Amino acid sequence: MSNMDIVLGIDIGGTNTAFGFVDREGMIIAEAAMETNASDGVEEFVSRLHRHIEDLRLDLPPSHQLRGIGIGAPNANYYRGTVEKAVNLNWGKIVDFKGLIRRYYDLPVAITNDANIAAIGEMLFGNARGMKHFLVITVGTGLGSSIVVDGRVLYGYSGFAGEIGHSTVDPEGRPCRCGKKGCLETYVSATGLIKTALTLLTERQEPSPLKVMSRHEITAEKIHEWAKAGDILSLEAFDRTARILGMKLADAVAHTSPEAIFIVGGMAKSGDLLLKPTRRYMEDFLFTAYKGTVKLMLSGMKTGKSAILGAAALIWGELEHQKLY
Amino acid sequence: MSNMDIVLGIDIGGTNTAFGFVDREGMIIAEAAMETNASDGVEEFVSRLHRHIEDLRLDLPPSHQLRGIGIGAPNANYYRGTVEKAVNLNWGKIVDFKGLIRRYYDLPVAITNDANIAAIGEMLFGNARGMKHFLVITVGTGLGSSIVVDGRVLYGYSGFAGEIGHSTVDPEGRPCRCGKKGCLETYVSATGLIKTALTLLTERQEPSPLKVMSRHEITAEKIHEWAKAGDILSLEAFDRTARILGMKLADAVAHTSPEAIFIVGGMAKSGDLLLKPTRRYMEDFLFTAYKGTVKLMLSGMKTGKSAILGAAALIWGELEHQKLY
Repeated sequence: MSNMDIVLGIDIGGTNTAFGFVDREGMIIAEAAMETNASDGVEEFVSRLHRHIEDLRLDLPPSHQLRGIGIGAPNANYYRGTVEKAVNLNWGKIVDFKGLIRRYYDLPVAITNDANIAAIGEMLFGNARGMKHFLVITVGTGLGSSIVVDGRVLYGYSGFAGEIGHSTVDPEGRPCRCGKKGCLETYVSATGLIKTALTLLTERQEPSPLKVMSRHEITAEKIHEWAKAGDILSLEAFDRTARILGMKLADAVAHTSPEAIFIVGGMAKSGDLLLKPTRRYMEDFLFTAYKGTVKLMLSGMKTGKSAILGAAALIWGELEHQKLY
Repeated sequence: MSNMDIVLGIDIGGTNTAFGFVDREGMIIAEAAMETNASDGVEEFVSRLHRHIEDLRLDLPPSHQLRGIGIGAPNANYYRGTVEKAVNLNWGKIVDFKGLIRRYYDLPVAITNDANIAAIGEMLFGNARGMKHFLVITVGTGLGSSIVVDGRVLYGYSGFAGEIGHSTVDPEGRPCRCGKKGCLETYVSATGLIKTALTLLTERQEPSPLKVMSRHEITAEKIHEWAKAGDILSLEAFDRTARILGMKLADAVAHTSPEAIFIVGGMAKSGDLLLKPTRRYMEDFLFTAYKGTVKLMLSGMKTGKSAILGAAALIWGELEHQKLY
């Protein structure tokens, strides 16, 4: 019997780190998770991660052959293999994360950020199979994005291409955590939606269940629930969010002309509540040559598994590109 | 003696069509031009162009070997070989221009739009030699753009990627000839600069030589001259234009993270008057990860020759990629 080729996919988040062994067809053979402990130094983190991985490896069939390791991490630089200035991790300025992993594993290792991981996963195992040009927009606490051109993630000259979340909606607009003003993610994100709802509360006279909640009780999930129930202000908050997203997606299309745009992340759970108006506004803002050419879609990945699968897809792609297995 | 390999580069404009035979080093062996006669049908145009080309060919050394034809034309679709809805040519909706040329020449033919031609020329013979990721922005009557990713022009799914001129600056802004509102080219173009100057004339009290000119006398060249002479309103018109350009270039960087952005076309003649403030504003609007990574530059192509050389570079690139000579 021949060996079973597998890779390890690791998804590092601010709170949890999930990892799993994945075969070439996208089947997760074994998986586990641990707390990230953001206050740990990075060497401590990697040493702990290594122990957890080796524990999980004991469950694998003896015939398995580990071929490589793919990693998704915040602020990862694909070219340099580094994690740079990750705000929610106490790892210091620039960490050679690939180098640290290779202290334990003498295998091909690749690392990139969460949005790129989502795009690569979609391309190998999800709804972007067969597509050459597409975008993935992750809308959660912030807004991340990944651009695929000719079947490959676009990294650009800096290695950080695709930070559409920090393109400008309004140069005099909302302050952004990045230090600029009016960035897309200050409007289109869970936090942006809440801010928009709060603005509407001060502007509008209509009765709304939002008005009787204390401000810190208002979450994106609540606004979603009330919008579903027909609350005018909540629907309007989604509509304003969708208009800005639609306008900036039309801008993105004017750059790379994708076949599809995938909306993933926490706010993707709002489904048509966000997608339907966004699709309409985007179409309005599109330049003639692009009208009717772009699909706006949800992910085709199993919820909760997409990050491990995406990290695995990253290293499968590298191995095939470089014919390393 | 071996044959001299050359290609034909053709640049089709609304008024003039220029063409020339170009060798692999970017030397123009012979060149000529004819009137486009925009009111002609396309078959008539191609027949006339063919006669002019054959006339010019008589001047070539007998040892030459014509290897292919590269064409720059408004609204050309690289994938389909078509010219589609070119507003300043009476050619009908969708013209199979590549097919028409191949009625006369049984050679490889490639066609793309003016901005892409400028980018390909810059890459083979100009200031982008050795660069993998860069943008070319053509600022003249309108604003065109071309995006190079991994050493290749980005066409995207539709074949029309890179129409940044129709990204949105202000959704309630100036009406654009494309039917949308507030497109970048309504602000950053010769016509946009004039509109901005006229707006400033109504807003400001300062004396200005622009105030004594009749409105239809105000051209981009005049505003340039007066700005050079220190006129406050003219300088302010350039500054506002540069701010909007800088903001949208920062957005473009957030998409593809280029190493350099080249400003070409009529308004590039304003040089530092436009480039210096644009560079400053762009840097202000750039997301942290991109600050200091992008050069804003002028073309390295000989003025007046760049379109023929770019069209020649297009087909040289194809021939080498496909090993056709």
